[in-house]
Amino acid sequence: MTKKIFQFDIHATDGAARQGTVKTAHGDIRTPAFMPVGTVGTVKGMTPEAVRETGADIILGNTYHLMLRPGSERVKKLGGLHKFMNWQRPILTDSGGFQVMSLNELRKIDENGVTFKSHIDGKRFELTPERSMEIQNDLDATITMAFDECTPFPADHKTAADSMRMSMRWAKRSRDAFEHRDGYGLFGIVQGSIYEDLRHESIEALTDIGFEGYAIGGLAVGEGQENMFKALEFTTPNMPADKPRYLMGVGKPDDLVGGVMRGVDMFDCVLPTRSGRNAQGFTRLGTVNMRNARHQEDPRPLDEKCGCPACRSYSRAYLHHLFKAKEILGSVLLTWHNIQYYQDLMAGMRAAIRDGEMADFALAFHTAQEQGDIEPI
Amino acid sequence: MTKKIFQFDIHATDGAARQGTVKTAHGDIRTPAFMPVGTVGTVKGMTPEAVRETGADIILGNTYHLMLRPGSERVKKLGGLHKFMNWQRPILTDSGGFQVMSLNELRKIDENGVTFKSHIDGKRFELTPERSMEIQNDLDATITMAFDECTPFPADHKTAADSMRMSMRWAKRSRDAFEHRDGYGLFGIVQGSIYEDLRHESIEALTDIGFEGYAIGGLAVGEGQENMFKALEFTTPNMPADKPRYLMGVGKPDDLVGGVMRGVDMFDCVLPTRSGRNAQGFTRLGTVNMRNARHQEDPRPLDEKCGCPACRSYSRAYLHHLFKAKEILGSVLLTWHNIQYYQDLMAGMRAAIRDGEMADFALAFHTAQEQGDIEPI
Repeated sequence: MTKKIFQFDIHATDGAARQGTVKTAHGDIRTPAFMPVGTVGTVKGMTPEAVRETGADIILGNTYHLMLRPGSERVKKLGGLHKFMNWQRPILTDSGGFQVMSLNELRKIDENGVTFKSHIDGKRFELTPERSMEIQNDLDATITMAFDECTPFPADHKTAADSMRMSMRWAKRSRDAFEHRDGYGLFGIVQGSIYEDLRHESIEALTDIGFEGYAIGGLAVGEGQENMFKALEFTTPNMPADKPRYLMGVGKPDDLVGGVMRGVDMFDCVLPTRSGRNAQGFTRLGTVNMRNARHQEDPRPLDEKCGCPACRSYSRAYLHHLFKAKEILGSVLLTWHNIQYYQDLMAGMRAAIRDGEMADFALAFHTAQEQGDIEPI
Repeated sequence: MTKKIFQFDIHATDGAARQGTVKTAHGDIRTPAFMPVGTVGTVKGMTPEAVRETGADIILGNTYHLMLRPGSERVKKLGGLHKFMNWQRPILTDSGGFQVMSLNELRKIDENGVTFKSHIDGKRFELTPERSMEIQNDLDATITMAFDECTPFPADHKTAADSMRMSMRWAKRSRDAFEHRDGYGLFGIVQGSIYEDLRHESIEALTDIGFEGYAIGGLAVGEGQENMFKALEFTTPNMPADKPRYLMGVGKPDDLVGGVMRGVDMFDCVLPTRSGRNAQGFTRLGTVNMRNARHQEDPRPLDEKCGCPACRSYSRAYLHHLFKAKEILGSVLLTWHNIQYYQDLMAGMRAAIRDGEMADFALAFHTAQEQGDIEPI
């Protein structure tokens, strides 16, 4: 029997951009990869079959949400998250740290970890590096994230340093508590806010410990795209070249293109799903608000070059009507389209890197985005 | 080129029950048939592909909702309702009469028709037999319903007689205004409340005019199943045997079985879709409330003998979780299951009639329903 090893193969590079495959116990992840977010055991509005049809290799689950409901022990009893939600391919779970700190007001942080009360029933919970590893293990995450503190932005140098150093001690405790299984991986998370010296120190601390992949945390928290790109530029070159790099919680289509050109391999964001439910469609030619009255008699698809069911079988007029009438199918179809757009964008970048044409790809991408939406009829 | 004729072929009878095929311009309808309701241009929570996968041959659209939004002229401009909503098979539209009278409080009825104000924007609308025919023609309905007044329940004999006789005058105006097209049909609607003499008078008036099918209106409005069945028993035997009979707005699974045994060929109801969104599942063994805590760790499917995606790929525990977490996928999956259950029930009855075993089928159906849900683990 072949042992399933967690492994990253790089097939091509183009500038800082890389095209590769992460091999896992649950299958391959083609990179650069975008992970749709399945917060609480479902990518909102999509069946797993539909998610897969868009070309997604991996989805993300949220430890914070899942530990509260239905509870990680229950998911374990029911055979793990893959079986529970009927997604047999790789799943990455976050550590719960970011969400407990950003979503929960009833929390207390100290060196040991975080205690908080459930917003659902007021029950008291504790999250520590050890407990986070246990929960993610119960969920059967293919990729587990180290427990960290996402340093708030802005933070002065001392605050950012103290926060990052605690995260590094938590990273060590995460590594120690993580149960090794073939084909499963643990990712460390680089912190340090927008300070170059702190990012370098963080990378050094993490590589001393050793992880199967490295994430960049603490970005996309309000610093703006320019600062984010600058931070990437002094961060990714110092990260291990032979391990996948994951930029957490990012982002808009042009963030993904800019991230890939700065050496990022993996992304996740709620934007395509949340926007889909809010009538906002992403296309090659920019974003389109389907609630706008100019669509109401437009027989054309949202994007004639898109192969998703929303664009193949329905008019802009119909999508507009569904959102005006508050019909579920509107959210379903536009979410599908947005996830398809994101996956097509990633597939386009993978091909461009293999062909050594990533710069041309990025130029064409920006030109089309700036052209704006199709002209009204 | 073969002309597409609107035609009803009866293949088998068993007692009063009939199994046949309605041939239309948009394809065949196997009867007895259940029509999922696509109120405003979508069967709520389902893609048309999913509706078809359950075995549905025909769906229903609501004239009242569609004339308000997006408007029948707009639907016509966009190629008709089939194209608009991506359902190429038969569509039956109601006349708008029932809904304007039951849903709209700002209405005025006289011999000419009904005037009312839109609940969406206050705009004034008029519905007459002639206007209803025009709207249904704009929508490109395969089966158009005559414009009628659904007599409220209870109604004394004189009120019921006056109301029915106005509906008969409206039926004649509907027939005169209906534009004949090959493969399209117009159905008259029998009224008369629970009075046998009035039902007979109504049938006579309608058959004198002549329709491609005959509906039974004014039932399932609060009279109870016993009264409904009694009314069917003195109504269907007097209806033309060679035309499809459609019992409007019915119903629960046991209403369908009882209706078929009393000679009904077609049904429609929002129950499977509305219940699906409200966590209520229909199964061979009765109805199941998926919000009930006893499902929370149950690894079994809702119905192990059901072939729908909800039962094939998910546990009761997962469906329960989706409803607790208010996830769209819960409504999507349970609606799918309910429509599948309704279509399977109709397919079972069609087979039973062909085999001359409708009485055995009904007995087995009632026994299973009374057995109640699967035992908790």
